[in-house]
Amino acid sequence: MNIVNYYRLTMQRTAAALVIGNEILTGKVQDTNVALLAKELFLLGVELRRVVICQDEIDVIAADLGLLREEHDFVITSGGIGPTHDDVTIAAVARSFGRQIVRSAELEAKIRDLVGERCNEGHLRMANVPEGATLLHTDEVPWPTVLVDNVFVLPGLPRVFQLKIPVLRQHIGADSPFLSHAIYTTCHETDITDLLDRLDAEHEDVNIGSYPVHNESYRVRLTFDSKNQEAIDRAVRDVLAGLPTDCIVEP
Amino acid sequence: MNIVNYYRLTMQRTAAALVIGNEILTGKVQDTNVALLAKELFLLGVELRRVVICQDEIDVIAADLGLLREEHDFVITSGGIGPTHDDVTIAAVARSFGRQIVRSAELEAKIRDLVGERCNEGHLRMANVPEGATLLHTDEVPWPTVLVDNVFVLPGLPRVFQLKIPVLRQHIGADSPFLSHAIYTTCHETDITDLLDRLDAEHEDVNIGSYPVHNESYRVRLTFDSKNQEAIDRAVRDVLAGLPTDCIVEP
Repeated sequence: MNIVNYYRLTMQRTAAALVIGNEILTGKVQDTNVALLAKELFLLGVELRRVVICQDEIDVIAADLGLLREEHDFVITSGGIGPTHDDVTIAAVARSFGRQIVRSAELEAKIRDLVGERCNEGHLRMANVPEGATLLHTDEVPWPTVLVDNVFVLPGLPRVFQLKIPVLRQHIGADSPFLSHAIYTTCHETDITDLLDRLDAEHEDVNIGSYPVHNESYRVRLTFDSKNQEAIDRAVRDVLAGLPTDCIVEP
Repeated sequence: MNIVNYYRLTMQRTAAALVIGNEILTGKVQDTNVALLAKELFLLGVELRRVVICQDEIDVIAADLGLLREEHDFVITSGGIGPTHDDVTIAAVARSFGRQIVRSAELEAKIRDLVGERCNEGHLRMANVPEGATLLHTDEVPWPTVLVDNVFVLPGLPRVFQLKIPVLRQHIGADSPFLSHAIYTTCHETDITDLLDRLDAEHEDVNIGSYPVHNESYRVRLTFDSKNQEAIDRAVRDVLAGLPTDCIVEP
C-alpha cells in the first residue's frame, strides 16, 4: 500500500538525517553513514523518512534543520563538528534554534584533561555547544554526544559516527522494530506487475518493495516490511501463491 | 571562504539530486549513485548543491522536485522508474509540472520491438512519460533518457545509472571544470585552525576543506577546489608555507 498511509496507520516515530559536507557533494567521499543509520533506525522501529545532504553553510544547514526538526520526531546530523573553518554545524544548530553558542564547562574540562599543556583554542572550539544542549553519556563512548531538543549532533567520520550508534539506540530507544522478509524470483519484473499491484493494495499493513537486479541468480528481489510478522507472512504467502513455483529461488 | 559566496562569485551552474527509494531509507541498499554523480558534475564544472533522499511517494517526490527544480539549473532524479507499484517517479514528475502522463509512441515501439509477443502492460508502463518530455539519445546508451524541462529522470540501479552518465555529460555539457588539489599532513587539525581560518578568508576564490582521518599515514587531508588553477596554487603555497615542513607527507 501507499507508504505514507501505511506509516500513518501504524503511527510510528519518524526521523530525518541531515548530512553536512562539501566533500560528499563534490564526490571526494562516498557517504556510508546514512546506510548505517537507516539500518539502525529500522531496527529501532523508527521510520527514516528523509535524508538531506547539504553544503557546509551555516544558513543552509540552519534552514534545513528548521524544517526537518519540525516535521520529524528525531533529526540526526552527520558531519561538520571538528575545529576548522569548514566545521559549522554547531553554529548552524544554534542558529536554527535561535540560541547562543556557549562553551561547555564539562567538555572544556574533558579536553584540557585529554590534551594537557598542548591545549589551544583549536581544541577548545570542540567544547562549543548551542546554549541549553544536553550532553548524552553512554558507557560505550568516551565522548558525550550533543543533543539539542530532538536533534542529535553526530560526527561525520564514519568510524566515529559508528561509535555513536549505541547512543542513539539508548536515547531514542526501541519500540516494536520493523521486520522484513525477502523472496527472490527469476520472473521478469514486467510479468508480475499485476500481481504486485493487487497484493500491495490488499496488504495495507505491509510495505512491499520490488527491486530488479543484474548479474544475479535471480531477477527480482521482493521485500516485505512491517511491524507485524503475521501480516508479513500473509503477504509473502499470497505473493508466493501468485508466482510460478519454479520462479522462486534462493539468492 | 564561505562556499555560497564563493559559488556566487564564480557564477557557475548548479544542480541538485533527488534520490527516490525506500530501500535506501530502510537500510537495505547503500546508495552509490550520488558519489558517481557528484564526481561527474564536479568535472563538468556544475555545483551539486543539495541531495534529497525521499520515499517512493508521488506527493512527496513532486513537492521535493518542485523546490529543487526552481532553485537549481539541473535536477537529476535516481530511482523509481520501473514497472511495479513502487515505481512512481514518472507520475511524480508529471504531477510536479502539472502535466498528464502520456504513452510515448517512440518508447512503445522500442519496447514492442525488444520484447516481441511477450509484451504486456507491465512492459508498456515503461513507455509512460510526462507530457512534453524530451527523449535524449546518445550513441553509448540504447535506451533514451527522459528529460522534462531541467529534470533528468535516471534509473536507480547503479549499473544502469552509470550508463546514463555520458548522457548527462553530453546534454549538460562542460564549461570550465572544477579543479582540486590535496595535501596531506601529520599535524593535528586542532593545531592548524588559525592558519586555515586566515587563509580560507584570504583565498576567496578557493574552497579549502579540512578532513581528519583515522588509521592513515597522515592526520588531515586538506583539499583546495576552484576553477582557477593559479588560485589553487597560491592557496596551496600559502598553506604549505604555514605548516612545518616535516608535517607534509605523501598519503
